[in-house]
Amino acid sequence: MIKRQQIKELFKETAFGNEVRVMGWVKTFRNNQFIALNDGSCMSNLQVVVDFTNTDEALLKRITTGAAIAVTGRLVESLGKGQSVEVKASDIEILGDSDPEKYPLQPKKHSLEFLREIAHLRFRTNTFNAVFKVRHALAFAVHQFFNNRGFVYMHTPVITASDAEGAGEMFKVTTLDLDDTPKKDDGSIDFSQDFFGRATNLTVSGQLEGELAAMAFGQIYTFGPTFRAENSNTTRHLAEFWMIEPEVAFFDLEDNMQLAEDMLKYVISYALNNCAEELEFLNGRLLEEEKNKPQQERSELSLVEKLNFCLGNDFVRLTYTEAIQILRSSKPNQKKQFKYLIDDWGADLQSEHERYLVEKHFKKPVILTDYPADIKAFYMRQNETDSEGRRTVRAMDILFPGIGEIVGGSQREERLDKLTERMRAMNIPEEELWWYLDTRRFGSAPHAGFGLGFERLVLFVTGMTNIRDVIAFPRFPKSAEF
Amino acid sequence: MIKRQQIKELFKETAFGNEVRVMGWVKTFRNNQFIALNDGSCMSNLQVVVDFTNTDEALLKRITTGAAIAVTGRLVESLGKGQSVEVKASDIEILGDSDPEKYPLQPKKHSLEFLREIAHLRFRTNTFNAVFKVRHALAFAVHQFFNNRGFVYMHTPVITASDAEGAGEMFKVTTLDLDDTPKKDDGSIDFSQDFFGRATNLTVSGQLEGELAAMAFGQIYTFGPTFRAENSNTTRHLAEFWMIEPEVAFFDLEDNMQLAEDMLKYVISYALNNCAEELEFLNGRLLEEEKNKPQQERSELSLVEKLNFCLGNDFVRLTYTEAIQILRSSKPNQKKQFKYLIDDWGADLQSEHERYLVEKHFKKPVILTDYPADIKAFYMRQNETDSEGRRTVRAMDILFPGIGEIVGGSQREERLDKLTERMRAMNIPEEELWWYLDTRRFGSAPHAGFGLGFERLVLFVTGMTNIRDVIAFPRFPKSAEF
Repeated sequence: MIKRQQIKELFKETAFGNEVRVMGWVKTFRNNQFIALNDGSCMSNLQVVVDFTNTDEALLKRITTGAAIAVTGRLVESLGKGQSVEVKASDIEILGDSDPEKYPLQPKKHSLEFLREIAHLRFRTNTFNAVFKVRHALAFAVHQFFNNRGFVYMHTPVITASDAEGAGEMFKVTTLDLDDTPKKDDGSIDFSQDFFGRATNLTVSGQLEGELAAMAFGQIYTFGPTFRAENSNTTRHLAEFWMIEPEVAFFDLEDNMQLAEDMLKYVISYALNNCAEELEFLNGRLLEEEKNKPQQERSELSLVEKLNFCLGNDFVRLTYTEAIQILRSSKPNQKKQFKYLIDDWGADLQSEHERYLVEKHFKKPVILTDYPADIKAFYMRQNETDSEGRRTVRAMDILFPGIGEIVGGSQREERLDKLTERMRAMNIPEEELWWYLDTRRFGSAPHAGFGLGFERLVLFVTGMTNIRDVIAFPRFPKSAEF
Repeated sequence: MIKRQQIKELFKETAFGNEVRVMGWVKTFRNNQFIALNDGSCMSNLQVVVDFTNTDEALLKRITTGAAIAVTGRLVESLGKGQSVEVKASDIEILGDSDPEKYPLQPKKHSLEFLREIAHLRFRTNTFNAVFKVRHALAFAVHQFFNNRGFVYMHTPVITASDAEGAGEMFKVTTLDLDDTPKKDDGSIDFSQDFFGRATNLTVSGQLEGELAAMAFGQIYTFGPTFRAENSNTTRHLAEFWMIEPEVAFFDLEDNMQLAEDMLKYVISYALNNCAEELEFLNGRLLEEEKNKPQQERSELSLVEKLNFCLGNDFVRLTYTEAIQILRSSKPNQKKQFKYLIDDWGADLQSEHERYLVEKHFKKPVILTDYPADIKAFYMRQNETDSEGRRTVRAMDILFPGIGEIVGGSQREERLDKLTERMRAMNIPEEELWWYLDTRRFGSAPHAGFGLGFERLVLFVTGMTNIRDVIAFPRFPKSAEF
C-alpha cells in the first residue's frame, strides 16, 4: 500500500495523476460528493471528490462531520479557488465513525463558553486549531531566542518547601492521609511523616532558584508551570499557568528592559512569519467579533496591525513617579471616571490606569520602572531614598494594550545587608532562604531578570479575550476537568 | 565605560591591544598574578594577568575563589597552551567577596554526595556546568526535532482530578486546612470545599490529554514535569521529573518505533555537535571515575564512543516473547546468576534482564515489543490472542546500555468496545474518563505514542550515574531543599 502523506505536504505536490493516500477527519460533506478533510497538519482542508454513483450507500452515510477516514485516490489540480490540489477518491475507508446525532461539534458557530465545556474536542475547531498552533510557535520562538543568545534553560522545581516566594497563595502538596493526619504531641500536624519530611507547596515562581543558576551560568531562563491558589474568577487569571523567567548576572535594569523588549519583538515577529495562515484567520475572527461591539469599544487596529505596530515602535520607558503625574492630571482622573482615583504617590496602579497609559496616552507598549518599595517584593534592588523621602525599587513592569501587565521584573538586591534588612522588615524568615542568601555571601554580583506570563503573551498574539481559551485544559476555582 | 563582553566572545577576538571589560567569578588565583576567570558563558576560564606590584595589597587579598570581579584591561595573545587570548588587567573591581574560610567550594575535587548538599552552588563546578549545558542542549534539540516535523507542543495540565492514569502513586494537591479538614455528614472529607471542588493530584503523565490533542492536530508532543509519590530511594528515580510524550494520529507501532529511534539519534547527535567541550570534559571525568573500578566493571566504550555507537547502529527490534526465549537459555539464567530467574512466559522483566539483552547479548540499543497484556496499561492496543492463548499488547520499551528503559510507549487501543472491556476488567472508572472515551466515540483512529524520561536521557548522554545529579534541585523522599 502506498504511504500516507500529510495534507500540508500534499498541497505542495504537483505530480498530478499520481495515486496518493491521506487520512484525516471529515469537516463537512456536501452533496454526497465533496469531503472537506483535515488532518491537523494545516488549517486548510483538502477537498476529496467522491464518485457517489459508484460508492456504496451505507458507506456514504458514514461520511459524517467528525468521522476519521482513510482515502486513496488520484491527485488532481483543483479548479476551486483557494486550493491548489484535490483528490479524486478511488477508495474510502471509515477509520472511526462520528454519530451526527451525538457529536457535539456540528459544522456551525459554537460559543467559546460552550467549547470550554468540551475542551477535549475544541482543538478540532478552526479557532482553537489556530490558537494552539500560534501557542506552539510562540513557545518554540522563546526557546530559540534564548538558545541563540547562549542562555541555559533551567527546570526549576515545581514542588517547593519554601512559602516565602511572596508571589501569591500556594497549593499544598502532600501524601498524608487527609482523613487521618498524623499529629505531634502539641496537636499540630506531624509533617515529618509526609513524603518530603516537611510541608511542601506548588511553586509560584522559579525566580529564586533561577538566580542561583544565573550566578554560575551567567544567563539562564526557566519555562515551566507555576501556580496560584487565589480564588480569582477573571478572564486574566489561571490557577495553573506557564511562566518564562530569564535571569542574568551582571545585568542592570536598562539591560533587563532591553532584553525583555527584544524577546517580545522576536517572538511576535516569529509568529507573524510562521503562522501567517493562523493569524489571518484570527484577524478575521476578531474583526467579526468586534462587529457586535459598539463603535467606541472596537480596537483602532486589527490584530495583525497591532502586532506589526508593536514591532515597529520602541517601548516607552518612564518611572512610576512620572506615570503618577500623568495619571493625576489625566481627563478620567479629573472627571472622576477612574474607579480608583489617583491622588497620592504610592498607590498601586490598577488595570484601568495601566490601560489608560498604554491605550490612550502613549498608544504604545510602556515600561514603568522604579515603583514604591512598599508595593513590591523583597528581592528588588533598593534605590537611594529621594529628596522627598520616597523609597523606590528598581522594578519594571511592561504594559501591553488590551492585556495590561505582560512582564514584571527587576534588578535584584545583590547587597546582603540591604536584602536581609528588607526581609526582616517584611517578616520573611532568613533561615528558610539560607541558600538564596548564600549567593549574596559568596561572589554576589549585580543581576536582573523578569517573568513573562506565557498565556498573557498568547492572548495578546491571538487576539483572544479569555485566558481560559489559550491553555489546553484551564485550571480555575471549582474546575479541574479533563 | 566600555561595554562588557562575555568570555566566550572574547576567545574569538583577535583585536589585540584593545581595551576590553569582562565580569565573572574567580576560579583560582595563582602567584598573586594569574586569575582564572569564568562567567558561565563557556567552560574554559579566561586568564587575567594582574600587575601585582602596582595593585593594592588589600585588593589582592580579596581576589579569592568564588569572588565576583569586574576587570578592565588590554587583550593580548596568550602564550599559554589551550587558550588563544588573555587580559592584562589595568583595573580590577570586587563586585562580591567570597570568604575563603567559609566558601564551601574550594578549588579541589569534591564528592558528588557533598555537592548534592549544596546544590545551589554546585553549578559553579566544571562537572555540573557541563551537565547542565548538555541538559540545555538536549532540551532544545527535543523542541527543534518536533518543531521541524510539524508537531504541536502541548502543555498538558499538572494538576489533575483523574487518578486513573495508572502510572504510579500520586501526590495530593489541596487548599484545605489540613488541621481542620471540612467533613461531610458521613465523616468523609468534603472536597466540594476544596479549591477545585473535588480531590486533585499531581499528574503522572500527560498522555491521556495528549491523545485528545493528537486527534485534532495529528501530531503533538508534551514536555513538562510529572510526578511519582513512590518511596523509591534509587539512583534512577525522582519524585519530580520531566517527561516528553509525543502522540501521533494514524501511527502504528512500527511508525512509533521509528519516531523514537529518530528522535533519540537526533538529540544525541545535536549534543555531540553542540557540546563538544562539555562532552570532552565529561568523557575524561568518566574515564577517571572508572579507574577506581575493577576491570570487569569498566565500560568497554568511552562516553563519546558510546554516543557515536548509538548513532551508527539500528536499534534491535524483537518481541517480548523472543526476548524471553533468549533470556531463558542465557548463561546467567542457566547458572542461576540472575536474581529473578526467567522461567515462565508472562514475567515482568527486571533491570538485570534488560541490561543482559542490551549490554551482553545484542550490545546495541534494543526495542522490545508486544508485552503480555497483564503487565501493561489499559490503553495499549490488544493483539489477537495467539495460538497458545497468550494475550499481548502493542507495547514497546526502548532499552539503553547502563540506563535500562529510556522510552516506553505503545500503539493505543482505538476500539471503544475493546478499551472499555479492558477498563472494566482493571476497575478503571469509565465515568471519570468520559472525555478520553469520547475520542473513541467520535472519529477514532489508530494512533500511537511514547514517553521519554528526560533525566534518563541526560544521564545517558552525560555519563553521570545518579539521576539526582542531572536535575537542578532533585525531589526525593525526605528531600525538597532549595
